[in-house]
Amino acid sequence: MPTPTTRPLTLDPAAQDLLFRRARTVDRFTDEPVTEEAIRAVHELVRDGPTAFNQQPLRMLLLRSAESRSRLAPHLSRGNREKTLRAPLTALLAVDIRFHHRLPQLFPAYPGAADLYAKNPALRERSALLNGGLQAAYFLIGVRAAGLAAGPMSGFDDEGVDREFFPDGDLRSLLVVNIGRPAGPPPRPRGPRLSYDEVCTTL
Amino acid sequence: MPTPTTRPLTLDPAAQDLLFRRARTVDRFTDEPVTEEAIRAVHELVRDGPTAFNQQPLRMLLLRSAESRSRLAPHLSRGNREKTLRAPLTALLAVDIRFHHRLPQLFPAYPGAADLYAKNPALRERSALLNGGLQAAYFLIGVRAAGLAAGPMSGFDDEGVDREFFPDGDLRSLLVVNIGRPAGPPPRPRGPRLSYDEVCTTL
Repeated sequence: MPTPTTRPLTLDPAAQDLLFRRARTVDRFTDEPVTEEAIRAVHELVRDGPTAFNQQPLRMLLLRSAESRSRLAPHLSRGNREKTLRAPLTALLAVDIRFHHRLPQLFPAYPGAADLYAKNPALRERSALLNGGLQAAYFLIGVRAAGLAAGPMSGFDDEGVDREFFPDGDLRSLLVVNIGRPAGPPPRPRGPRLSYDEVCTTL
Repeated sequence: MPTPTTRPLTLDPAAQDLLFRRARTVDRFTDEPVTEEAIRAVHELVRDGPTAFNQQPLRMLLLRSAESRSRLAPHLSRGNREKTLRAPLTALLAVDIRFHHRLPQLFPAYPGAADLYAKNPALRERSALLNGGLQAAYFLIGVRAAGLAAGPMSGFDDEGVDREFFPDGDLRSLLVVNIGRPAGPPPRPRGPRLSYDEVCTTL
């Protein structure tokens, strides 16, 4: 059944389907490898997404080797282990909470930005989490734009993951994302979504 | 100059341009109104984006009236006031930190999810911020999918905004987003973006 198109959108219906309407979170993938070229293309597309003061706090570890995956697995919730060990590629998304050191280069229009964050670590962590969240979503959209499926997960012990992968203490893990091509249809229908009237109020 | 296409992407080049490559954060808009129909279409597209346990914590106040905008303006950083008062529409994005009450309906596959968050307010706030960040990014992409431009801002006193608009204490403001059609070209070139090799490491 073709997805009904919504007139006020400029984005063409095939792209709407690819990025949102037909895209699903995926748990089981085919064995087809995810190339570095594909992930480079995703990055090259979504790096343009906006962040506050162009801070771009998101960093990514691409866990390709069996050894790197086996370091992650013990920190995942039980139900997330097997599917992660079997995915063609797993991306560990994290944020650099010392992103402010790069602001003079990334946002020269406001020279005071780095100081603002240097003085206030709580603001900096919150800002890294929010803007890293924006960039994580751009990345998920980018994975779909590459014709791949993503399986994002927050079911893991983030302090354990940080100790294992980021011992310097500059990075905080956000999401683990399995990436590949879906093996078969989704196991269940899409969960219910909140309606416009449940989430939007006009003043 | 046409944007060079990147072969490994499935998304067609026009959509790549619309959502990322040619899209820019916008400060000055034409007077053309942004219809409720357009925002409903954006919501109807991006509500499908994934969140942890399908929690969907994002809520939105659409500030249409001059009176609602004048309640917001004093809490914005000085440089953000005038452009917000002049934008055709301003969306105040916030997260519901009591989202867990809806999980039995939104994610029936894991009945324990609501309890997990009920017991741990710090986890709940962090999760609302991260997943609200994902949804905020889906919304920004959706605004662009509707052929509109967004001007997202985090330069505001979020505690002041929360007191003014969310006195019940259940919502925390995330972003203020001006929406409309750009009046003229962007005032400056796009800021520098971090390269693949600066943000990605393969293990």
